[in-house]
Amino acid sequence: MDRIDTLIAARWLIPIEPAGRVLGMHSIAIHQGRIVAVLPTQQADQQFEADERCDRPTHVLLPGFVNAHTHAATALLRGAAQLSSAAALEQLGWSSLPTWLDAEYVRDGTELAIADMLAGGTTCFADVHLFPEVVAQSASAAMMRACIGLPILEAPTPWAASVNEYFERGLALRDDYRDDPFVTTALAPFAPNLLSDATLTRARRVADELELTVAVSVDKHSGRESETAFARLERLDLLSPLLRAVRTMHLEMPDIESAARTGINLVYYPPAQFDTRDGVGPLAELDARGANLALGSGPAASGALGMLETMRRAALLTSTLSPHTAEIPAHRWLHWATLGGARALGLGETIGSIEAGKSADLCCIDLANPRTEPVADPATSLVRDAGREQISDVWIAGRTVVRDRRLTRLDLQDILQRARRWGLRLANL
Amino acid sequence: MDRIDTLIAARWLIPIEPAGRVLGMHSIAIHQGRIVAVLPTQQADQQFEADERCDRPTHVLLPGFVNAHTHAATALLRGAAQLSSAAALEQLGWSSLPTWLDAEYVRDGTELAIADMLAGGTTCFADVHLFPEVVAQSASAAMMRACIGLPILEAPTPWAASVNEYFERGLALRDDYRDDPFVTTALAPFAPNLLSDATLTRARRVADELELTVAVSVDKHSGRESETAFARLERLDLLSPLLRAVRTMHLEMPDIESAARTGINLVYYPPAQFDTRDGVGPLAELDARGANLALGSGPAASGALGMLETMRRAALLTSTLSPHTAEIPAHRWLHWATLGGARALGLGETIGSIEAGKSADLCCIDLANPRTEPVADPATSLVRDAGREQISDVWIAGRTVVRDRRLTRLDLQDILQRARRWGLRLANL
Repeated sequence: MDRIDTLIAARWLIPIEPAGRVLGMHSIAIHQGRIVAVLPTQQADQQFEADERCDRPTHVLLPGFVNAHTHAATALLRGAAQLSSAAALEQLGWSSLPTWLDAEYVRDGTELAIADMLAGGTTCFADVHLFPEVVAQSASAAMMRACIGLPILEAPTPWAASVNEYFERGLALRDDYRDDPFVTTALAPFAPNLLSDATLTRARRVADELELTVAVSVDKHSGRESETAFARLERLDLLSPLLRAVRTMHLEMPDIESAARTGINLVYYPPAQFDTRDGVGPLAELDARGANLALGSGPAASGALGMLETMRRAALLTSTLSPHTAEIPAHRWLHWATLGGARALGLGETIGSIEAGKSADLCCIDLANPRTEPVADPATSLVRDAGREQISDVWIAGRTVVRDRRLTRLDLQDILQRARRWGLRLANL
Repeated sequence: MDRIDTLIAARWLIPIEPAGRVLGMHSIAIHQGRIVAVLPTQQADQQFEADERCDRPTHVLLPGFVNAHTHAATALLRGAAQLSSAAALEQLGWSSLPTWLDAEYVRDGTELAIADMLAGGTTCFADVHLFPEVVAQSASAAMMRACIGLPILEAPTPWAASVNEYFERGLALRDDYRDDPFVTTALAPFAPNLLSDATLTRARRVADELELTVAVSVDKHSGRESETAFARLERLDLLSPLLRAVRTMHLEMPDIESAARTGINLVYYPPAQFDTRDGVGPLAELDARGANLALGSGPAASGALGMLETMRRAALLTSTLSPHTAEIPAHRWLHWATLGGARALGLGETIGSIEAGKSADLCCIDLANPRTEPVADPATSLVRDAGREQISDVWIAGRTVVRDRRLTRLDLQDILQRARRWGLRLANL
């Protein structure tokens, strides 16, 4: 018998890789934070002796969700009724910066979002916001995996005064977390419309040199009449597997072809206020051409940060807006919400699927619920029916962060208290 | 001091009537199942001495949701993967009846749906299904309020052999529940396309005589080339305040005008599989003309039966499909999900709002959650962000049916067990 830390035995297991599989009565053997084996529970009981055994007899185990794009701190703006346009809220992180946007705001907002995300089964998120060192600290303290965007702007903000300073501070942060097991960094020249060709080219050079991923928003228009935002990124040679492009709902041919060919990652991020008929965009077309897709979710734009909600919403929009295309299979949504996200963050080798050697970042959902029974296909149940109240456990690198539906490592009351204080402060501005 | 059964003191209270109000630090005094008073908690403490006092310091209290149309028993078909078209599932209750559709199926399915609905804050539902006496018994046993549709068909089914027998059995059931405090009945010539003019006219006559509400589905086409389904109902004089019309997403002028003028009730019911661009239809136009609107939710068509989910989905579809119309205010969605539904069921005097004299059918939602904090406007939080896991308590006629997020009066394990057995049986057909 092999001695291991933890054995989780579940009714069903969706490994994501191999694709489209649902394994019945399987177990995951975990040791020192990593998945050692995935095998039928009967075999697991003969092969392993675990310090802790978790039986989940009516549950489905899957990789923790990856939120491939968010502005976590904006969770605090949820209540800001006077700022009712979500689009405007999102931009607050970037331009027309209000004076109250400081490191404390970023800490309190990020911690609120982390609590929200963990309860929703998300184990890793990619963030883009000012004061990225605060986001990194918050994620690290919560033992949550995060890919921290290093903001690159030309305009001065409370965080940096010049393009040079953005790069300097960003790369210093990157060095700080170079060997961190949970925190990675990415370059975030996120609003290319506000940046010169020179700055974008510099970002690409730095990214290539240091093998950093790059997060950009691809708006419909580049601000230049002659060129779309996507065409500009192509001309400046930013289209590479290191790039993840957010807000690509409007992509059309031939950009769809070149997105797929260049191997960029595309993040579906629910449209702010749902105020666009673009809906989810050409997900199916991109997928058919082999492009890597991922899902992102922002608190100010769309309510809860949960990936269950995001998958369902995207599926709803897809079938409503494209009633004549084939329905996207449930397993595909789950792939995008896990491994697709992991790959978009450059973490495809570490997380995103339940495979031996990968980190034990897991989410466990109890399907014995009047909301989901009777279950024929757990993948369909998850995408179509399951709610957050069914998420029983979440592990990151083998450590419990949610158990019995409760956050185990965070002081939730303190987080909510601080959020309420910000709510009052913002309401009285 | 007045002696009362229960006092519920909440952070916020949304009474629905008067409209658009959020009352801070208010209490509800309940005696013998009815609301005695709604008043500031400070005053309530001076005026009432309650046997039970419920403090809900971070919660919002609102009337229990009314699901104004469902086919509850179809909850069992959720897992039937081989029957993947939700539209087809829905129709199973009506035509091409499979041999397994018996009273036991209806009981097990309805109990599953009731568990789902109660946990989701719904305190009253309108059902249309064969074996309505079984639905009535299940609702009554669960102490849930229900408006039971008495099916009127011309084709023989296991429940009745002729039009006459449908009317006879239905009206006998109506007599059985004539004085029931929880169960009311409605005529359900639900699929008018399958019925002759004579049968529809008879249904109207009976409804008028007995003051029964009438539930019909209004398909786009009546099956007759010369006349729309809506025009046919108008010609046969069925358009009256007793009528509730389901599936009216496709209504256009002048039908919108005549729907409003005749005082019929319109139930938005999420499209099966969301496979229509009709979306939610002309809700805003109907509302502007004073028509009464309500929301319905079916388990087979759309996953969870919750009204939070239904409101959010409808709001999402509205803003996606009609990006240029003004956003429907959160209070309006809440009105449709409560008082609008109550009125559509002929229960507008009894339930649907928090007013003295009405039944204490209530739903309590804890907004101290990383998903909803910080809260600026509780109505917006409910429609945009809140999840079922935040529904802490549900009362029906002053009796607790959900407390601390758990069903208090149902044997959930038994219900789930039976649902699983049906899932296996249906999968092996």
